[in-house]
Amino acid sequence: MHAMTMPMRRLPRSPVVEFGDNILRGIGQVMLQNNPISGLLFLAGLFVSSWQAGVYALFGTAVATATARLLGAPAASVSSGLYGFNGALTGIGLATFLHHDLTLLAYVAIATMSVTVVTAAIQDSIGAKGYPLTGPFIVTTWIFIGGVYAFAGVLNAALDSPHLPKSPPSVHVPLGLGDIVTTVLKGVAQVMLQENVWTGALFLTGIAVGSRITAAAALIGSIVALALAWALGARPDLIRAGIYGFNAVLTAMALGGVFFLLHPRIIVVTAIAVCFSTILYGSLAAILRPMGLPALTAPFVITVWLCLLARASLPRLGELSPTAPGTPEENLRTTRPSASNQT
Amino acid sequence: MHAMTMPMRRLPRSPVVEFGDNILRGIGQVMLQNNPISGLLFLAGLFVSSWQAGVYALFGTAVATATARLLGAPAASVSSGLYGFNGALTGIGLATFLHHDLTLLAYVAIATMSVTVVTAAIQDSIGAKGYPLTGPFIVTTWIFIGGVYAFAGVLNAALDSPHLPKSPPSVHVPLGLGDIVTTVLKGVAQVMLQENVWTGALFLTGIAVGSRITAAAALIGSIVALALAWALGARPDLIRAGIYGFNAVLTAMALGGVFFLLHPRIIVVTAIAVCFSTILYGSLAAILRPMGLPALTAPFVITVWLCLLARASLPRLGELSPTAPGTPEENLRTTRPSASNQT
Amino acid sequence: MHAMTMPMRRLPRSPVVEFGDNILRGIGQVMLQNNPISGLLFLAGLFVSSWQAGVYALFGTAVATATARLLGAPAASVSSGLYGFNGALTGIGLATFLHHDLTLLAYVAIATMSVTVVTAAIQDSIGAKGYPLTGPFIVTTWIFIGGVYAFAGVLNAALDSPHLPKSPPSVHVPLGLGDIVTTVLKGVAQVMLQENVWTGALFLTGIAVGSRITAAAALIGSIVALALAWALGARPDLIRAGIYGFNAVLTAMALGGVFFLLHPRIIVVTAIAVCFSTILYGSLAAILRPMGLPALTAPFVITVWLCLLARASLPRLGELSPTAPGTPEENLRTTRPSASNQT
Repeated sequence: MHAMTMPMRRLPRSPVVEFGDNILRGIGQVMLQNNPISGLLFLAGLFVSSWQAGVYALFGTAVATATARLLGAPAASVSSGLYGFNGALTGIGLATFLHHDLTLLAYVAIATMSVTVVTAAIQDSIGAKGYPLTGPFIVTTWIFIGGVYAFAGVLNAALDSPHLPKSPPSVHVPLGLGDIVTTVLKGVAQVMLQENVWTGALFLTGIAVGSRITAAAALIGSIVALALAWALGARPDLIRAGIYGFNAVLTAMALGGVFFLLHPRIIVVTAIAVCFSTILYGSLAAILRPMGLPALTAPFVITVWLCLLARASLPRLGELSPTAPGTPEENLRTTRPSASNQT
Repeated sequence: MHAMTMPMRRLPRSPVVEFGDNILRGIGQVMLQNNPISGLLFLAGLFVSSWQAGVYALFGTAVATATARLLGAPAASVSSGLYGFNGALTGIGLATFLHHDLTLLAYVAIATMSVTVVTAAIQDSIGAKGYPLTGPFIVTTWIFIGGVYAFAGVLNAALDSPHLPKSPPSVHVPLGLGDIVTTVLKGVAQVMLQENVWTGALFLTGIAVGSRITAAAALIGSIVALALAWALGARPDLIRAGIYGFNAVLTAMALGGVFFLLHPRIIVVTAIAVCFSTILYGSLAAILRPMGLPALTAPFVITVWLCLLARASLPRLGELSPTAPGTPEENLRTTRPSASNQT
Repeated sequence: MHAMTMPMRRLPRSPVVEFGDNILRGIGQVMLQNNPISGLLFLAGLFVSSWQAGVYALFGTAVATATARLLGAPAASVSSGLYGFNGALTGIGLATFLHHDLTLLAYVAIATMSVTVVTAAIQDSIGAKGYPLTGPFIVTTWIFIGGVYAFAGVLNAALDSPHLPKSPPSVHVPLGLGDIVTTVLKGVAQVMLQENVWTGALFLTGIAVGSRITAAAALIGSIVALALAWALGARPDLIRAGIYGFNAVLTAMALGGVFFLLHPRIIVVTAIAVCFSTILYGSLAAILRPMGLPALTAPFVITVWLCLLARASLPRLGELSPTAPGTPEENLRTTRPSASNQT
């Protein structure tokens, strides 16, 4: 995770290799993986779906990382990808919703310089023990998507994106059994706003490189979200596009082993949190629709922040919280739950 | 109040009696009363208006209280009803706006488990000296009402609720003198989203059991709100339904004696705060309408939070703030205002 | 600035002179100038544009300042205009958007009493090192403008205000070279919601009385915003009314020398922040339109708060932050940048 200290060979490296490593880790951190190989697989997944998504992810990570370095951010937080992954997502987000041209490139440059300041500001607001998660991406992307409705020079390319549904589909095709595998994988791909089965598979592989438990959590989160959204009667076209999955995927990964130790109690809490984040996605998407904004990963951030904040008042959550979150495997090795002193 | 320590017979009690006591206090705390008899009268008031409201209040309080216990919340905060009253309101809120069936029961179960985590998170965010008030209910209910617009399986039963007015009434009947008593009582009943005169009377009785001053404050708050809403030209059908009253009732009770010592200066501040919360209700209801959300008790929470936060910078407010808020009568007995050292 | 200690002759003064001084400094602080002569020139600028704006500015400052004194606010914060300038802006804001009559006077009285409590609450929330800026004005004005949609007795006079555009203009007149000077000056005038060239000129003069560097920053901010809004294709009628300028003007003044020491690095950061606040204005105006609310100076407050919060994590910003912000000239005299200890 963001604060994770992963042992690595600290040979002297050239600045170019260092910067490349920063960028790949930045992209890796989008899925909570602090290692360059995961980042490389995620990047491959992006390019499989859309070359713009891949290019803007690289561009966004590079601009945000360079800005953080120029403004003197501590080397540890830059090299762990903290600044980079919000830059990556902001680049992808704007490339997904807006039309690619030179104006967009300048627009994304301002956005991804800004996201570094937003990240630092959120980090300072929530304290050293808090995690900005994808909060800086959400705030910055909302601001720059909202600008599209004011500036005719920035073209809205995605009025028919499933993230901004304008009207119910004319032909209502119910979900079939054959949709399950593709929907579950698209749920993983939509974490970076892509609707592509192979992207989802590459993302899952990249996650498994860092942690098999987290990969399993992502898969199960996507399945639970699909089942719940179907049971509650969500729009089948949106379910099929993976729209109901990506917040559940992130919530399952973050709570199921990374920010809390794997434990039967945490598995129950994570299951309810995954349901909560799925309902919150439907709700937030509806609430934000009049304003023309997509919900993005806000349901994930809100759900995880609520669970992390609640630790102080609910000791049976707090006692299962590792001091320096790493992969679920690392957490189980390094932390052992303190004895519960509450009844 | 929430932090109030009310002397009670501490005989050893069976867990069932203890849990029943928790639930009744939880319902009592909706109107700032930490005693089971008030809770019982409030529950009676709910059943007089709607059996669904009564059943979902009990269900919500039970689920939220049980969740808090399972997650290790300190016994003192559980038994004072802190977790229960937001569960009660969330149950009532969803039962009021949504259609009762088995899906709703499952939906409310997830919501009232979540409200406990939301309560703990808000408590931690505002610090040990802050009061979550009905904030957790508002956040959770907004999320789960918003979900209705995304999930066809959860039926919206309240498109014609005065809390979510869709259009001006076709026949505009002006307020008459005879409306005053019923409107004032409905203003009290609407604190738990009910539009029933007898409910309002039972609520007032329940409040008077805990504190006569608070009951008087509730009554005066409802009258002031009626007068102001009428003077500013609010919609008569909404005024008549008590819609402009309930936030004023809560604000008058909370500021007029509970969170501040009764004192001529506080009476003036409370009167202005009651006007502010009434205007804020009209404003927030209009602002939230495009998103399909009701204002609920957010004007009350915002108004009281502003006054509590302002204490540090405005010493003449701060010096009248009891360290452990109880009923107005208790506060006057235990606290004496510190001498003002400001001109 | 708000915390600025400007040396002044401390002769014993009558309470009336003291109160008059408070009011003029309050109006001066709207443009970050803590001196009565700037306040007088700003007031003249308001009267040149609209007598209502001038009268309500005086009324709002007087009510907010008197409320702060009655509630025991420390003399230093009252006399530096902290409470007054949000009262001034709230008075102007409501007079601009609403219809002047006796109901409005009562409505503005409640609003400007409230803004003092809102200011104290925001000050306490952000800590002693934070600056409320125009945040209290924005919150209070949103609440009382929102009320217009609920209360028929408060008349909306400004349905065709450029701050609340309802529809694109029927005749689309492109910007001409001759528009540049008037647009830049109107950008300055719109800081107090006025669309008048002479008002802008008087405001600039008042700023120059306090600091020539700040006056230059205001001018350059207005020019940059005009250029960017034009390049991104914003509506020409809104650009021409100065609507895209005022947040840039405030951002340029605040970051360009007041809250940060003038330094090449800060000039670059300020330039990007000015672009960010201009895009944020377009975005926020669009996002808030369904709710019927104007963006006011929220883009300025958000931009400056982000930069101030980011100081802790980005040392190369932090090292250029004066401990007690004054005019740019004073800051350069009293503070010298600490040596950067980051690479």
